[in-house]
Parts: sequence; structure tokens; C-alpha cells
Amino acid sequence: MKYIHDNNINSGEKIPNESKLSAEFNAGRSTIREAVKILASKGVLKVKQGAGTFVINPYTLEDDPLRLSRYNDKLQIALELFDVRIMLEPEISALAALNSTEQDISEIKNLCDEVEKLYLSGKDHVKKDIEFHKKIATCSKNRVVEELIPLIISSVFTFANVTHKLLLKETIETHRAITEAISHHDPAGARCAMIMHLTYNRQMILKFIEGNKDLK
Amino acid sequence: MKYIHDNNINSGEKIPNESKLSAEFNAGRSTIREAVKILASKGVLKVKQGAGTFVINPYTLEDDPLRLSRYNDKLQIALELFDVRIMLEPEISALAALNSTEQDISEIKNLCDEVEKLYLSGKDHVKKDIEFHKKIATCSKNRVVEELIPLIISSVFTFANVTHKLLLKETIETHRAITEAISHHDPAGARCAMIMHLTYNRQMILKFIEGNKDLK
Repeated sequence: MKYIHDNNINSGEKIPNESKLSAEFNAGRSTIREAVKILASKGVLKVKQGAGTFVINPYTLEDDPLRLSRYNDKLQIALELFDVRIMLEPEISALAALNSTEQDISEIKNLCDEVEKLYLSGKDHVKKDIEFHKKIATCSKNRVVEELIPLIISSVFTFANVTHKLLLKETIETHRAITEAISHHDPAGARCAMIMHLTYNRQMILKFIEGNKDLK
Repeated sequence: MKYIHDNNINSGEKIPNESKLSAEFNAGRSTIREAVKILASKGVLKVKQGAGTFVINPYTLEDDPLRLSRYNDKLQIALELFDVRIMLEPEISALAALNSTEQDISEIKNLCDEVEKLYLSGKDHVKKDIEFHKKIATCSKNRVVEELIPLIISSVFTFANVTHKLLLKETIETHRAITEAISHHDPAGARCAMIMHLTYNRQMILKFIEGNKDLK
């Protein structure tokens, strides 16, 4: 999966043959064959006898449960995703402020710190960022939210988050504000901070759309 | 599936043996065996050699994609589901008022009429009711909403909708108000009418919880 993403291999494109991959990964051909089999079973690859192995969908159902990666207008679908997140996450954040235990709050604070650290050191923070938002969903203590939010937030993976890298200061500040409000059991504060956080991101997507730049 | 629901056979309970079902349905035993196989493959039934055939989960993943039927506190989970619907559907209804074409509006009106007719004649309206809400989601023209709403609305199936039967007048009036507002391209009206519709239902669930009655 990492190889497919790092090399930007899209749906319909071919991956190198077994011996090339074997050399690339410094691994036996049977290991490569096993990996191909697993990714084929997950609907990522398709082996066409005689023609080679092709990427069908560069995301697993786990990474992209709503199958949003099938749309080509990445910026537009990113905007639609944010419109849904803005319907849900401010309210969820308010519920988390009402319902979080002290244990929950300490976990949210830790995740907030970890995202910030990764961010500031220039490392990939997306996975931890998703964990932060998922944890807040869990703290809402609404079991439907708990089922639903992972489906939505995971989709963030499928957009390469150009926005985030440009919003270092804003992300750190709004994440911190959300965490503070939840830890003070302040639902209105948590709602507003989440709105602000999502709005910065949404505005950045809009700028990209206006600039007609490609979000890849 | 209909037999399991009509006879209220819950998870862990046994269904009658082949010959009894064969007589019940006036069908050959091979037909019964085929039906059992299909429901076993969908995770509804489990055949235990020598012991009989048991219901594992009375809903397919299609009917209950969020697997909410696994929770036993039906009223509480119904309330949590409505809390999520109230976050999403008023905004979706407003989007539908902005983005519906004339063709969309005519389809929404038809569904509204059909639900009303089924309701007034005392027939099962749930399936059409779900279609009505799904159609509004589609008219939002937000593709994430379109993926998400079916997952949420389908869950309504898993609660036997005691509330709906008690809310005949309110449901008809609010469905009509939602339809009117969308057809007049009035987003605020559509938002408010949807809030009212969901609120009647939510209040009824609360009454049941207070009365400690069982929603089955």
C-alpha cells in the first residue's frame, strides 16, 4: 500500500513485475506474491494473466469505507466531505464536553500533544489527527456516532491533506481550543472551537478550488 | 427474513425444522434448504449439525449496516440514532431545497403521497418512508451525504417503529411541510420542517423511555 501511494500509482495503472518488486523491497518473490494476493483479496490489485498486475482502487475498504476515492474531482468531494463533517463534529464535540470522564480527557490531551509534536517536527501527523477526532467521537458516548465517525474521518486519508500542511498554526491552536473546552466540560466552547477548526480547512479547500489547483 | 420478523425470532433462538417450514410455506424441502443457505451466508442463520438452525442476527448487513441491532437497549439506541439524524437531516433538507431539480421535486412529492396513502390505509409504510428520506438525501447533491444517509436511515428498520404508528397526523403533516418547502426552494422552511418531524419522533421515544415500556 505504501509503495502504491508513495509512487502515486492510480487506478488502472500497472505495478512493476515480481522480480523488480523483489529487488525494490529486498524480499523473496514468494513474499511479494503473498503481498499481491492479500491486496488482490482487498480489492486493491487485480492480476491479469499475461498482462501484469494492476491497481483497481488504491485504497482498501478500511481506509476508504465510503469509497470516495472513486471520484476524480478530489477538491469538490473534499468540500462535500467537510460539509458533512461540519454538520456532525461541532455537535459531537459539544457532547464530548458533556460526557467525557477524567480518563477520556487525559487521553484527548495526550492525542492533542502527540499530533502537535508530529506536526511541529514535520512528520506525518494524519493518522494521529484522525485518532484525535475519533477519540472525541467516542467521548460523545453516542454509539451511533461511534460507528459513523470512523467511516467519515477515514476518508480524510484519501485526500492528501495539502490543507493541513498549510494550516500548521491554525490546526494546533484549534485542536488545543477543542481539547481545553472538552476538559472544562464547556459544550458551547467545544462546539465553537470545532466549527473554527473545520472552517479553516474548508476555506483552504475553497481557495484551492478557486485557484483551480490540483489536490493530490 | 419475513418469517423471522413476523414470528419475532431473536438472536440465539432456533427456527423450526425443514419439514415444518416446508409445510408452513407450502414449498419443497430443497427450496427451504436453499433459503437457509442464503440466510446463513448473510450471517442471519447458523446451522448447527445435530442441534438445528439458529438465528444469529435477525438483520442482514444491508438492513442494519451499522449493526445497531446488536444492542439490547432498543429505546436508548433509538434515541442516539435520532440525535445523529437531528444533526444531519435538517441541514440535508435545506440543501435539498437549494439543489432539487423539478424532476427531483416531482419524485419527492410522489413518495410523500405514497407514504401518506400507505399510512392512512394502515399498511406498512416504513420502507416507503425510508425511501422518502433517502430521496431527500440524494437531492442534497452532496455525494458524501448520499453514501452516509442510507446507512443511518436503514437502521430505522431495526426498531419496529412504535413511534410512527402513534404519530400518524404529525408524520403526515411534517412530511408534507418538508415536501412543500423543498418544492418552494425554501431552505429555512425545509430545515425547520425536518427538525419538527424528527422532534415529534424523538419526544415519543423519550416518553417510551420514561414509561419504561419496551420498544419491540
